[in-house]
Amino acid sequence: MNEVKIIEVKQSVFAHNDMDAAALRKELKEKGIFLINLMSSPGSGKTTTLTKLINMLKDKMKIAVMEADIDSDVDTRTIAERTGVKAIQLHTGGMCHLDAEMTRQGIEGLDAGDADLVILENVGNLVCPAEFDTGASRNVTILSVPEGHDKPLKYPLMYQVCDLVVINKIDVMPYFDFDLEKCREYVKMRNPEAAFIPVSAKTGEGIEELAAWVEKEVKAWKEA
Amino acid sequence: MNEVKIIEVKQSVFAHNDMDAAALRKELKEKGIFLINLMSSPGSGKTTTLTKLINMLKDKMKIAVMEADIDSDVDTRTIAERTGVKAIQLHTGGMCHLDAEMTRQGIEGLDAGDADLVILENVGNLVCPAEFDTGASRNVTILSVPEGHDKPLKYPLMYQVCDLVVINKIDVMPYFDFDLEKCREYVKMRNPEAAFIPVSAKTGEGIEELAAWVEKEVKAWKEA
Repeated sequence: MNEVKIIEVKQSVFAHNDMDAAALRKELKEKGIFLINLMSSPGSGKTTTLTKLINMLKDKMKIAVMEADIDSDVDTRTIAERTGVKAIQLHTGGMCHLDAEMTRQGIEGLDAGDADLVILENVGNLVCPAEFDTGASRNVTILSVPEGHDKPLKYPLMYQVCDLVVINKIDVMPYFDFDLEKCREYVKMRNPEAAFIPVSAKTGEGIEELAAWVEKEVKAWKEA
Repeated sequence: MNEVKIIEVKQSVFAHNDMDAAALRKELKEKGIFLINLMSSPGSGKTTTLTKLINMLKDKMKIAVMEADIDSDVDTRTIAERTGVKAIQLHTGGMCHLDAEMTRQGIEGLDAGDADLVILENVGNLVCPAEFDTGASRNVTILSVPEGHDKPLKYPLMYQVCDLVVINKIDVMPYFDFDLEKCREYVKMRNPEAAFIPVSAKTGEGIEELAAWVEKEVKAWKEA
């Protein structure tokens, strides 16, 4: 896999990102594309989790991926090589998040008219991506065990806007002071409606439950 | 320790943060305050590393700490309780970084006229803090082992602006696919001048070397 498609996305010229996001969400609904916006800190395991999730779902639905990064295309190569699904790179040119217009440029560049599920891997950042609606149908965040269970206290908005909180790297729980029940409680404090799924992208534990959550949400969205 | 001093910092009204940062740096030099701007992803161990570092240095120089967070005061409580040095909380009101004006408000609120060393723990974020000169004498970033050795490839600016890269959580190296030499090489690629110190804030390994680096830099800065 030598040719990674790279799109240099530009920030929205519209002042009203929320309106733009709502319009994109409506268009995607008409096209039958369910868009997941996946957010987290750098290094919490977005790409590895995605790889496992996609391999579990790819026979059931057509999937495509947009990898946003300030620089580099390592994640797009990883996804393409390990899953075989269509993946493109969005270069944000130093921007710390994606907005709806950048996401739209990505969707157009991806040319994913026949996809059932598009996953946007946002820039690794717990702050700014939470502030910008990308037009996604669902927001998901990953918190990894080594980061500590106090993150919902420190980065409230990220947890408020997400429909699902995935706790990753549970295989290394014995080596860290991570209290899973306290974490669940902090997440609930920020967002009582959010789902909460502990996984290990490395060992595969919990990925089945994660895949089931995605299938259930796609079904609910189609019927809505 | 029940009373954490919290300052709600406001973004600069000046368009030219760089000018403002240069002015603050000059003022701090006149006051004899060496300011370190400590940056990293959320959960890479800034507060734990600081605690160990301060306990090693506090008999040699007068230290004070400013903890920037979007919300919560957990880090300020931790620092104050575990080191006894003066620590205040800067609330950024949702902002993803500190600029020079916010740092100035912090320095004023800290009332640290007699401090030799002030450490600013920036918001946990590998992107935005790198873009804003705070007026600090030195920039330091922490990368923790669980985040992966590829971070200098993905977040170039952070590594370009830092004088020192601390690799934290080396005690868990056996449980992660982290290549220390590759990481050193990637850091060098971004910034050939940056120092590189592996530590474990948990076990204390490497903290002595880190403290020696700080002492050396304070000395060089005083003589400059």
